[in-house]
Amino acid sequence: MTTVELELTTRSAATLGASTIMKALVYHGPGKLAWEDRPRPTIQDPGDAIVRITTSTICGTDLHILKGDLPSVTAGRILGHEGIGVIEQAGLGVSEFHIGDKVIISCITACLKCDFCRRGMYSHCRHGGWILGNTLDGTQAEYVRVPHADGSLYSFPPGGDEEALVMLSDILPTGFECGVLNGQVKPGDTVAIVGAGPVGLAVLLTAQFYSPAAIYMIDLDDKRLAVAKQFGATALINSADGHAAHHVMELTDGAGVDAAIEAVGIPATFDICQAIVAAGGRIANVGVHGKPAGLHMEKLWDRNISLTTRLVDTFTTPMLLKVVESGKLQPHKLVTHRFAMNDIMRAYDIFGNAAKEGALKVVLKNNDKANSRASSAA
Amino acid sequence: MTTVELELTTRSAATLGASTIMKALVYHGPGKLAWEDRPRPTIQDPGDAIVRITTSTICGTDLHILKGDLPSVTAGRILGHEGIGVIEQAGLGVSEFHIGDKVIISCITACLKCDFCRRGMYSHCRHGGWILGNTLDGTQAEYVRVPHADGSLYSFPPGGDEEALVMLSDILPTGFECGVLNGQVKPGDTVAIVGAGPVGLAVLLTAQFYSPAAIYMIDLDDKRLAVAKQFGATALINSADGHAAHHVMELTDGAGVDAAIEAVGIPATFDICQAIVAAGGRIANVGVHGKPAGLHMEKLWDRNISLTTRLVDTFTTPMLLKVVESGKLQPHKLVTHRFAMNDIMRAYDIFGNAAKEGALKVVLKNNDKANSRASSAA
Amino acid sequence: MTTVELELTTRSAATLGASTIMKALVYHGPGKLAWEDRPRPTIQDPGDAIVRITTSTICGTDLHILKGDLPSVTAGRILGHEGIGVIEQAGLGVSEFHIGDKVIISCITACLKCDFCRRGMYSHCRHGGWILGNTLDGTQAEYVRVPHADGSLYSFPPGGDEEALVMLSDILPTGFECGVLNGQVKPGDTVAIVGAGPVGLAVLLTAQFYSPAAIYMIDLDDKRLAVAKQFGATALINSADGHAAHHVMELTDGAGVDAAIEAVGIPATFDICQAIVAAGGRIANVGVHGKPAGLHMEKLWDRNISLTTRLVDTFTTPMLLKVVESGKLQPHKLVTHRFAMNDIMRAYDIFGNAAKEGALKVVLKNNDKANSRASSAA
Amino acid sequence: MTTVELELTTRSAATLGASTIMKALVYHGPGKLAWEDRPRPTIQDPGDAIVRITTSTICGTDLHILKGDLPSVTAGRILGHEGIGVIEQAGLGVSEFHIGDKVIISCITACLKCDFCRRGMYSHCRHGGWILGNTLDGTQAEYVRVPHADGSLYSFPPGGDEEALVMLSDILPTGFECGVLNGQVKPGDTVAIVGAGPVGLAVLLTAQFYSPAAIYMIDLDDKRLAVAKQFGATALINSADGHAAHHVMELTDGAGVDAAIEAVGIPATFDICQAIVAAGGRIANVGVHGKPAGLHMEKLWDRNISLTTRLVDTFTTPMLLKVVESGKLQPHKLVTHRFAMNDIMRAYDIFGNAAKEGALKVVLKNNDKANSRASSAA
Repeated sequence: MTTVELELTTRSAATLGASTIMKALVYHGPGKLAWEDRPRPTIQDPGDAIVRITTSTICGTDLHILKGDLPSVTAGRILGHEGIGVIEQAGLGVSEFHIGDKVIISCITACLKCDFCRRGMYSHCRHGGWILGNTLDGTQAEYVRVPHADGSLYSFPPGGDEEALVMLSDILPTGFECGVLNGQVKPGDTVAIVGAGPVGLAVLLTAQFYSPAAIYMIDLDDKRLAVAKQFGATALINSADGHAAHHVMELTDGAGVDAAIEAVGIPATFDICQAIVAAGGRIANVGVHGKPAGLHMEKLWDRNISLTTRLVDTFTTPMLLKVVESGKLQPHKLVTHRFAMNDIMRAYDIFGNAAKEGALKVVLKNNDKANSRASSAA
Repeated sequence: MTTVELELTTRSAATLGASTIMKALVYHGPGKLAWEDRPRPTIQDPGDAIVRITTSTICGTDLHILKGDLPSVTAGRILGHEGIGVIEQAGLGVSEFHIGDKVIISCITACLKCDFCRRGMYSHCRHGGWILGNTLDGTQAEYVRVPHADGSLYSFPPGGDEEALVMLSDILPTGFECGVLNGQVKPGDTVAIVGAGPVGLAVLLTAQFYSPAAIYMIDLDDKRLAVAKQFGATALINSADGHAAHHVMELTDGAGVDAAIEAVGIPATFDICQAIVAAGGRIANVGVHGKPAGLHMEKLWDRNISLTTRLVDTFTTPMLLKVVESGKLQPHKLVTHRFAMNDIMRAYDIFGNAAKEGALKVVLKNNDKANSRASSAA
Repeated sequence: MTTVELELTTRSAATLGASTIMKALVYHGPGKLAWEDRPRPTIQDPGDAIVRITTSTICGTDLHILKGDLPSVTAGRILGHEGIGVIEQAGLGVSEFHIGDKVIISCITACLKCDFCRRGMYSHCRHGGWILGNTLDGTQAEYVRVPHADGSLYSFPPGGDEEALVMLSDILPTGFECGVLNGQVKPGDTVAIVGAGPVGLAVLLTAQFYSPAAIYMIDLDDKRLAVAKQFGATALINSADGHAAHHVMELTDGAGVDAAIEAVGIPATFDICQAIVAAGGRIANVGVHGKPAGLHMEKLWDRNISLTTRLVDTFTTPMLLKVVESGKLQPHKLVTHRFAMNDIMRAYDIFGNAAKEGALKVVLKNNDKANSRASSAA
Repeated sequence: MTTVELELTTRSAATLGASTIMKALVYHGPGKLAWEDRPRPTIQDPGDAIVRITTSTICGTDLHILKGDLPSVTAGRILGHEGIGVIEQAGLGVSEFHIGDKVIISCITACLKCDFCRRGMYSHCRHGGWILGNTLDGTQAEYVRVPHADGSLYSFPPGGDEEALVMLSDILPTGFECGVLNGQVKPGDTVAIVGAGPVGLAVLLTAQFYSPAAIYMIDLDDKRLAVAKQFGATALINSADGHAAHHVMELTDGAGVDAAIEAVGIPATFDICQAIVAAGGRIANVGVHGKPAGLHMEKLWDRNISLTTRLVDTFTTPMLLKVVESGKLQPHKLVTHRFAMNDIMRAYDIFGNAAKEGALKVVLKNNDKANSRASSAA
């Protein structure tokens, strides 16, 4: 046993120094978060990597956790499933990365070996899926243990912008895979995106990879709609009047849209999608739903539509990296606020009042001091 | 004007003789049908063909009409959207068929020119779609006018079996396109079909084109399940105990099915499909729904499933004909009862009590006398 | 007979006036062209439309014809398969267009009814395909008869630019369908286009619908490469040194390109494509080939590549129109020279010396005088 | 170092006993094979498994090696890339299999982590691909070391038939992926397979998953054609008269075939495929080519065809297993001869004279003695 552990860490830096404590954001039950000391993670399986976090961010899902909506997240859990960092230790089974490599951490952990991974459905990996900041400690910390590192990390490109690329941990592949790919967006299409929050805007940014002719953005908040305009939306619809569907049908001369993409997660917005999808069109769900929705099968049964659901697989991360590097996707646009990691409690406050604060994504950076300490330890 | 009409019929047989009357099944409002005299149809547009019906059949949809469920069907309408026959007259614009050609009449009329037809979505043809026996007089008669004949008729192959091939008017393309193609059935798949009526059995027959490893058939009626067994189902589930979903999950070791195909059209059976679809699987709806269904988005949002609806396009009819000719599909299996066309009232009785009568499809044939009269007229 | 002809033209303008003569560019055998008087075309079949040409252009294929390379084109033929115009007469079977409609004429004539048209393969239409300016008189004239008008014409959008949209007759769908669609260009891809002539540039413009990360343009002519740069190419390779393939492999770190698109039509450029395609990549042929090519099966057999050929189907014209209208495609960029139609002989001279003249596409316009004469005739 | 090796083998059986020698078929240069003593393989990397071979077979490629055609295979190499066996030892990184598991060994080794593996292109794995019996010692032995075992082995199903399932190591996925999938065989299609050797027959068996209407088998050998008839071919063409293409065109009324599948690997048979592919059809290459082929681009450029090449990826092995288990595929049909493994020299003689001997696949079994010895060792 001792032998094994020793073996498993032979690829780590020679010595980690005295410090085995780190700071981390810990969930202590509904409404309770603390930035506190925790033991640094260590290698537990041959496929593990220990990553020193340099940049992280907060996801809307983290707010749901904070409200107590996700029973899988128990008190004592370090939150966060997005991040950029540097590999400090690697198990013997890690072959694609080396100590010192800067990496993007995927929100989805993939063993690559199970039947789901073999089909590219990493979201349903039998040994992974969404586990970081959920059933395992996450990335809003100084260090994180990433299981199945070879399938769950992506090389950070030389000269890349951490702030931009941390958007590849979750939000951009989510918008792209669940919204754009499932919505089968094509050149010349008319697309509607319901919800102009960060994930809806990620759909908006990545839908433009396929040159749709029109993208309608639907939201209750004019400020967010204004951002959507800057990001490439061709028409804005404030749904506060309860007639969003009517407006879309007018804009499309009664035809409806080729792709209706739901990026909110409640029955009302799901209803809008059903009302505006054209015959032969697609409804692509991106939102996280907490309760059942109604489906107007009496109207839809003969409309030749498809409706898809999806937890992001992040299998498109390499492709997204190439598009970012080519300059055709500029994810930093989504970042509105920046904090030192140890200011994360304040970052949660701002992000928790996103509409009022005009916040989209807030970026968290482990500050110089933390970094230098980590460096000296490595 | 006179000139035009004359022109439009120049391709008809030289003279139609004295008879301009035919027999037809006429809907006279909910619960009221009559087999009565009606004027023979005539060419009204350059794309029209007048087809003398030799074989027809009754569809479950006809029973819905009879109940008054379809407001688009008004009193005075000749019913029927399936049939085999011989072209008696053709408008000037008809170029793919000639007088005397034996043809299969598609339940879907396709102009081939509109945007939907250009995409292969004949079901939503702007000048056609399902109109025969709905908004236009149909095929349960001695003659029918088929608009856009070039897009709505298919050549009857030499030596073909009318009884078998009349199944290509509707039920086989419906089962195949809405169920099998939309369900993306693949070799090795596990498939569940909910509903072992004629259309569910059509799904069963055509699903086997793709060599799935298992096909579960779910129905309340053991007699129909026994038929499904003969047709190739690998497991039978009687859902009368209310635990059909549970049984399917047991059979699949908790994984669920790759494709769940709904062939009934009510919320309860739609629910079964939601409960048994595997992560990454497909729900393909075939049934005609009269009311909304619930959709368990709280369970499905992260399951990577697709759900499709479709009115049959019959664009696969040429492919189905080839498979029938190759012997790999034997549609006559679906035929349980045969009647002379002028016995159609009795045929409706039998078909209306299908479960009790053990009826699947009932075939209607214009008898010799009718045929010879028609011949002499031509 | 007389009756029929009369009928067929009942939808034409009330009277065509006295003039039955028009000007047209006539091929009189290799090397011989003349702009001369010819009878105006008349309706011959119910599906015909007579279109008064307002804008046309010259295709590289026309130069091949002029050299005598295409035996299907016989002396006396009016050339041209691209054009914009106004419908002057329409046969009885034409239902999608009306007299006075401004239309884009597709280079491909499609009956929409035959088996190939039903599959969207209009290029192989059994009653059409490429016939205008080939086996039937074409568009480099004041009028043209377009058979199967409903499948061969597209509505000119209000406010459209004729100069830009005449590029939708042939070159843009050719580049898009044969090059981009067959090459399966995807976001993040590395694409090489061999040949920076008009059709190669059409590939370049439409490849960008899919946000590839890199597009390499390969040609012998630095001027054309400079144009490619302006049109969005990310790297330029002058192949004059005979080492184009080597340069591409260097640029891709030895991996090769995801899509190699051949837009010349000779064995040497086809060889380059074979040498640069990555394992798992696609070679999409756009060029017109006059002789066999070698295929390095000894190197390619285990490389998992696909190679496609295609005559344009123009089935994407409606989609391309939407993208042009959205501003995401600007086809007028391809136009370098403009002539009055009756200057067409000079236009051929310029286009025949394209490299020297810096010519891409030359646009021909029936001048005011011609137009007013046509108008007065209508 | 010692520690590592010790660790790497901790999952092996407690002791392997005294024997570290095994028998194996060794290639000693062109024309020279020997069944001789060799050291048993041992774990070298954490992903390795040592498999005791129970069943193997000989591939046509092995005969090419024997002739000296493959320079990558050097003297001293143990041949064989197909096999069934039992895991005797497993490295620490192996997580999907355990000691004692019976497995099917894929001819393709897949790390699952590299970019090609992530795309399902295991054939081009950066750390694997076809290496067994090529650049690493292979399966015609008592034991074999399988690198990247988790990606390169498949669980042998309970109650399976070794003789049948050893066909899943190579020949069935090769026929299916390179021929049937790449050939896009669909219900109703007309398919031609050029070459009725074992791999052509594997194409024939798996093409029937998709219910094509007709399958023409083309070969020079009437005996093999007779086998093809039993296996489901609908027409047989002996190409000895040099007019195979002509016969196919007659059978298809001049249309040609939807899919032409090349399963020989020489220019002459590749030519036949070019001559018989229909407009819009596919040529799928399966054969291993040693020299360039001619491609009639002057005839094919406008025919809208696709041509594919492929080294098998074996990504369909799980699907093929399901189809075998369902009874819809019966691979044992391919087996004509059976030998004890230590009779392998005789098996090579028979297989090397396959036509004369009427041999398709020859199965090699490690006999009881070998097995019991192996067992006692484990």
